[in-house]
Amino acid sequence: MRHCLIGKFPGVPPATVCILGGGIVGTNAAKIALGMGANVTIVDLNLNRLRELDDIFNGRVYTLASNSYNVARAVQNADLLIGGVLIPGASAPRIVTRQMISRMKKGAVVVDVAIDQGGCIETAKPTTHSDPSYVVDGVVHYCVTNMPAAVPNTSTLALTNATFPYVLRLAQHGAAAAIKADPGMCEGVNTYAGELTYKAVAQSLGREWKPVMDLLH
Amino acid sequence: MRHCLIGKFPGVPPATVCILGGGIVGTNAAKIALGMGANVTIVDLNLNRLRELDDIFNGRVYTLASNSYNVARAVQNADLLIGGVLIPGASAPRIVTRQMISRMKKGAVVVDVAIDQGGCIETAKPTTHSDPSYVVDGVVHYCVTNMPAAVPNTSTLALTNATFPYVLRLAQHGAAAAIKADPGMCEGVNTYAGELTYKAVAQSLGREWKPVMDLLH
Amino acid sequence: MRHCLIGKFPGVPPATVCILGGGIVGTNAAKIALGMGANVTIVDLNLNRLRELDDIFNGRVYTLASNSYNVARAVQNADLLIGGVLIPGASAPRIVTRQMISRMKKGAVVVDVAIDQGGCIETAKPTTHSDPSYVVDGVVHYCVTNMPAAVPNTSTLALTNATFPYVLRLAQHGAAAAIKADPGMCEGVNTYAGELTYKAVAQSLGREWKPVMDLLH
Amino acid sequence: MRHCLIGKFPGVPPATVCILGGGIVGTNAAKIALGMGANVTIVDLNLNRLRELDDIFNGRVYTLASNSYNVARAVQNADLLIGGVLIPGASAPRIVTRQMISRMKKGAVVVDVAIDQGGCIETAKPTTHSDPSYVVDGVVHYCVTNMPAAVPNTSTLALTNATFPYVLRLAQHGAAAAIKADPGMCEGVNTYAGELTYKAVAQSLGREWKPVMDLLH
Amino acid sequence: MRHCLIGKFPGVPPATVCILGGGIVGTNAAKIALGMGANVTIVDLNLNRLRELDDIFNGRVYTLASNSYNVARAVQNADLLIGGVLIPGASAPRIVTRQMISRMKKGAVVVDVAIDQGGCIETAKPTTHSDPSYVVDGVVHYCVTNMPAAVPNTSTLALTNATFPYVLRLAQHGAAAAIKADPGMCEGVNTYAGELTYKAVAQSLGREWKPVMDLLH
Amino acid sequence: MRHCLIGKFPGVPPATVCILGGGIVGTNAAKIALGMGANVTIVDLNLNRLRELDDIFNGRVYTLASNSYNVARAVQNADLLIGGVLIPGASAPRIVTRQMISRMKKGAVVVDVAIDQGGCIETAKPTTHSDPSYVVDGVVHYCVTNMPAAVPNTSTLALTNATFPYVLRLAQHGAAAAIKADPGMCEGVNTYAGELTYKAVAQSLGREWKPVMDLLH
Repeated sequence: MRHCLIGKFPGVPPATVCILGGGIVGTNAAKIALGMGANVTIVDLNLNRLRELDDIFNGRVYTLASNSYNVARAVQNADLLIGGVLIPGASAPRIVTRQMISRMKKGAVVVDVAIDQGGCIETAKPTTHSDPSYVVDGVVHYCVTNMPAAVPNTSTLALTNATFPYVLRLAQHGAAAAIKADPGMCEGVNTYAGELTYKAVAQSLGREWKPVMDLLH
Repeated sequence: MRHCLIGKFPGVPPATVCILGGGIVGTNAAKIALGMGANVTIVDLNLNRLRELDDIFNGRVYTLASNSYNVARAVQNADLLIGGVLIPGASAPRIVTRQMISRMKKGAVVVDVAIDQGGCIETAKPTTHSDPSYVVDGVVHYCVTNMPAAVPNTSTLALTNATFPYVLRLAQHGAAAAIKADPGMCEGVNTYAGELTYKAVAQSLGREWKPVMDLLH
Repeated sequence: MRHCLIGKFPGVPPATVCILGGGIVGTNAAKIALGMGANVTIVDLNLNRLRELDDIFNGRVYTLASNSYNVARAVQNADLLIGGVLIPGASAPRIVTRQMISRMKKGAVVVDVAIDQGGCIETAKPTTHSDPSYVVDGVVHYCVTNMPAAVPNTSTLALTNATFPYVLRLAQHGAAAAIKADPGMCEGVNTYAGELTYKAVAQSLGREWKPVMDLLH
Repeated sequence: MRHCLIGKFPGVPPATVCILGGGIVGTNAAKIALGMGANVTIVDLNLNRLRELDDIFNGRVYTLASNSYNVARAVQNADLLIGGVLIPGASAPRIVTRQMISRMKKGAVVVDVAIDQGGCIETAKPTTHSDPSYVVDGVVHYCVTNMPAAVPNTSTLALTNATFPYVLRLAQHGAAAAIKADPGMCEGVNTYAGELTYKAVAQSLGREWKPVMDLLH
Repeated sequence: MRHCLIGKFPGVPPATVCILGGGIVGTNAAKIALGMGANVTIVDLNLNRLRELDDIFNGRVYTLASNSYNVARAVQNADLLIGGVLIPGASAPRIVTRQMISRMKKGAVVVDVAIDQGGCIETAKPTTHSDPSYVVDGVVHYCVTNMPAAVPNTSTLALTNATFPYVLRLAQHGAAAAIKADPGMCEGVNTYAGELTYKAVAQSLGREWKPVMDLLH
Repeated sequence: MRHCLIGKFPGVPPATVCILGGGIVGTNAAKIALGMGANVTIVDLNLNRLRELDDIFNGRVYTLASNSYNVARAVQNADLLIGGVLIPGASAPRIVTRQMISRMKKGAVVVDVAIDQGGCIETAKPTTHSDPSYVVDGVVHYCVTNMPAAVPNTSTLALTNATFPYVLRLAQHGAAAAIKADPGMCEGVNTYAGELTYKAVAQSLGREWKPVMDLLH
């Protein structure tokens, strides 16, 4: 951090936070940054999502259409840059270049939450909870993989809330019936009966795959 | 106006409004600008007032301590600059110089609400409702004197609400008794028994004055 | 305007704003009117949309089911009436009659944003930015066509944000492939290969039309 | 109640609540009515208090300067009228006349919280928790004396919070020293050494009184 | 009620309200309880709905994933428990057991809005507006059937807003055509041409039924 | 930290933050904790301050009157306890005992911002930015002296905003005249003309002192 407080102090300009991606990661990052008093901008490609964000935040965040001009300008102004651009099951797109990072203020901070999918910031590389940060061009990078592991109490409850309904259905109906009955569960199957069944995983490993529905009778 | 909307549009950066002075003029200007979706900064000398503004606006405006560095920077970034620095009964201090104005974006707008006390912006000069604006260094100036006259319905009610309690007391007790009983009313007396009784007016006209209390028996 | 301020003044009743239609026009008009301190009512036919508006505005606007009784009463109370009822590609329905307008307060203001589709207020007729308003039954009408043209900076960015993804797809894939791949783009095609392809336009001009999909191979 | 819900229902106009007096009673009544979704107006004489209320409620209540015209109009529109005008130690002023009450909608409700000081509404007379309401001119009146007694758990804690610091000082320093040291406690003494010491009580009972400070050595 | 105020009093802990179900009943109950100053928790099975509730309430309610552990704990802490878990056309699931009720504080209050579908709380049994409540294990139960009947003015408008569009279509097109054209209306038909056409009703009465579409030509 | 997130996650109970003292430290701590989504309670002795906090936070924090029963209960429930009870120029009162700390959840966190005045929590002892925390009874303590030093950019601006007006007056009028003219500055003088002039400092060091006004001519 540029040794500046994210929180707001009367008479002192607040920290500027730029968040890439208005999905779950970005929206929650925005809630916290805004709650701490920062000047928050969310960049997203999807105009409908920007409209929803405007409604959700009651106009308190600035929304910006994603294009290279807007990204470059928003990154340059940021004291804190949060990368939250994810494509489920695929590599994250690299929308922030090293050149953009090099124009940030010295001491600014970059957090790439997309690091588990390879990161959406060119200078991001995976770090660990024990040695979490490094510096590129005077900018501090925090790119710990599996960030939720830092707060295991909350993460466990949150993950259980999301997975428990599936577990219940597996227990009640058995795997084959549960998969057939629920397209959402079907999409989540990675292997079945000894075969790879998830296309994106197969492609990134260069292997064969079969649709899980073909393997069920 | 730089042909930009004060209102917020998803994906487009909002207008930046800089307000000089956090008193009644500035606070109400901020409420409206904020309500329209602008990025609002209030500049004031008084740190306690900045703290109160932070509480009143629930952190939605940026507050800035008034000094020439901060004023220059805030003016330069503004799409709309509102001058609301007033000293009751005296000339407004000129805290924005012509040089600061010349560094604003072309098409930016300046409104000097302090114009009835001479204005707090160097390039401000009085205009009228029929010919309200002029341009200096590419910046549009709106410096209509007696601005509330544009909304006489609201202004009349607002003014009556403020003055009616005094009128009532004058009617009930007579002028002398009402003035003696109420230091607030005493401060508002400009002439009494043929004498000037208001120091600031006397000084700005280079005339003699007497305290009104000395003229009452 | 009835020479009354939309903004709120302590101790003085605020202006009453009635907005017809809770879509994008109406929702944004409500945000600004509310932000300025007005008493805002949105009238819409769609009960689910009224529920959403209640959530979005956190209960700060009054929502009203659209029927002729409710419209008549809301119009009569309004200091400012905004018409934002639009049916894409068709004429706007005329839901406010001249009789309703004639019962408004003298000096009240009507803005018909639906004027580009013929207006949703019976007394509305197109005006221009140079001569924007006229008076009917003591009520000021502002019905400038192409209102966004007044703020070209903002409008251009907003429009570009919305159209740019389509332009990108046209550039990457060519017109035929882009239209085939995207039902949204398909719906937007007005003419193709010398034929009218948009039903509503064809009908309002009394001409033949063909579905664009029939013209693509 | 006019058999209408105070809470807000999308598409249905909310209840209108008029609150007389912007002190502790009125402000808390407004918080709850507003929270339930009502259209709330607070009437008060003090312009500075109206300004504070505007800040506290972030513009969500309508404030109205108190005069007979405004009171009459606000009372007439109300579905629920709350009287909260109190003068400490004296009778409440009767600012709502029977004529105003008779113009309210049939089934409207009046709650006079000032009833313990005689009520600020002409038609109010004390009732009890067991037989709490009566009807005048079709308007339901609820004027239970000692209303906090209905929620003894909360009232006891709230009262104890307010009185405990005084009890502590009495215990630590004794009555005479505690009264001398604290003008606030001094003002609260009703009798001392066999004498009435509270002017307003003495006057309303037509008895003699002495300042408590004269009775302390 | 435990003789405690739902409204908030500075320095006194607020009432704790637990709401089962985050649908229309639960969301509106939460708005009012929150508006009155309570500490509000909403329990729901659907994680996406919990996320939406978090956005709608701007983080002001606590959301809890529904499972027997969480329900038991939330019920135990509540001063007021509201049951709003409904399955359209079927019996409500009994998610609160008598044992959970018996662990609530003495004087706590239970309102089962699902009572018209049998209630979602084991100890709930239907009551009437004239004798609305009873006590089980020291906990006051309010389980009036057809609760909206208490506010007929509001309920009639709200119900009319929801049903009027269907009535209009029936009047314009006749029953058969209206049912065929609108799957929503089709789902609402209970009997047609002398046959039961609503599956859930038929099942709960142990009778035969036919799909309405089979009865239309 | 109990390895739980302060931020809010739908369906998971938020962290509970207890803040002792509702002054500048406590109010700002509450703003940030609330912004992050925590369940926040502020404990203060002053009932008027609790009322102001209720207005400032719009009912979003729970306020609690300070007494040993309330403090003990609030501390026991807290995941994060912040000590912000300060008496200017004197030692902070120790309002949290070791016994209260020992009843906190294992892994809970204590931050004593009053540590520069000795701390308001019995188990607090000064630590440094390089070795900031230690554990007592399973509770993590963070009691770094001069905490603002961690964010020197913000702290310097904030401190300068507060001190600059005094520096200006010293420069314009000289020390003696500035002190005479301003009771606030007078109160801040610690030594003058070789004498100790600040009573609390003198008392805590067991030395003589003289009022600064006696040393000025």
